[in-house]
Amino acid sequence: MEIAIVAFDDFTDIDVFLPWDLFNRVKHPGWKVKIYGTKECHFSVTGLTVPIHSEIDDLNNVDAVLFASGPGTRKLYNDEEYLKRLNLNPSAQLVGSMCSGALILGALGLLNGKTATTYPTAKKELEQFNVNVVEEPFVVEGNIATAAGCLAAQDLVGWFIEKLISKNVRDAVLNSIQPVGEGLSLTNK
Amino acid sequence: MEIAIVAFDDFTDIDVFLPWDLFNRVKHPGWKVKIYGTKECHFSVTGLTVPIHSEIDDLNNVDAVLFASGPGTRKLYNDEEYLKRLNLNPSAQLVGSMCSGALILGALGLLNGKTATTYPTAKKELEQFNVNVVEEPFVVEGNIATAAGCLAAQDLVGWFIEKLISKNVRDAVLNSIQPVGEGLSLTNK
Repeated sequence: MEIAIVAFDDFTDIDVFLPWDLFNRVKHPGWKVKIYGTKECHFSVTGLTVPIHSEIDDLNNVDAVLFASGPGTRKLYNDEEYLKRLNLNPSAQLVGSMCSGALILGALGLLNGKTATTYPTAKKELEQFNVNVVEEPFVVEGNIATAAGCLAAQDLVGWFIEKLISKNVRDAVLNSIQPVGEGLSLTNK
Repeated sequence: MEIAIVAFDDFTDIDVFLPWDLFNRVKHPGWKVKIYGTKECHFSVTGLTVPIHSEIDDLNNVDAVLFASGPGTRKLYNDEEYLKRLNLNPSAQLVGSMCSGALILGALGLLNGKTATTYPTAKKELEQFNVNVVEEPFVVEGNIATAAGCLAAQDLVGWFIEKLISKNVRDAVLNSIQPVGEGLSLTNK
């Protein structure tokens, strides 16, 4: 079972690193998390890097694809060459986006006539793709989900885990990052 | 104004990357965020790396020091050489820890006779240092603060920002990562 996080230059740090950390807390036979991109590594808006494990041309074989967010999405959703290389298989895959990552789903036509959410600064751009943009942290339309506001990554990652494994694993993973006394107890070990 | 995040090998990804991202959202004259460590880069528990901008021997000149968390803290809080190199100045600095990062503060004697919080798996170890460990997401003792459960990074980072700049800047930074419809509005730009 393979999960792909799609990164690119000028990604928002949390929108790659938070899903990455959460997905890596899953202990399940065959569970694999990889970062997809277009070069050896990609730079975040703050200058950190992530290694790229696979090229975006190879996304068609994974079980779930999560598009990260950040200023870099603005260039990509207008880049026909990039969009053509995104070899998705949305009838058989789960596909989701954080914040402005929805612009890439929009440009691919995956949100056409659908409801979705995105970061406030990307609302108008997303509406260009015939999307009903709503003020919700998380919206599911069949196999496609959009989350907005960095901490809504919990909803999106949780949705992937529950769909692919179980609600119990989802709950255990999300619980492990809650504040102590507010979901996580000092008597948990 | 300089903020130091202390990283080490086997750090928990979110406990470095979430504070890093939040601190980097601060736009304030002279505000600088750097990652401190003991080599050119450090590896997270999942195998990602962060670049190290300064050595831990130089911590005495910064305004605030945040110790990250992760399995790597267990080796460090028993490492006399490492502890000796941590050139802190806690009467003039703000010092804080995420989760098991409190073990390093404990080993330095900074929590002696005080109240603190930590990750559930580190509770017993922290109590060895004469610390009253409580089930709270965030505890402040003068210039020293401890936070536990990854998302409590918001409390800790917010405390640093409010002490060093203002509550307004704190609120703006923390608001920018809340889920849409739950703190962040689609009409914010």
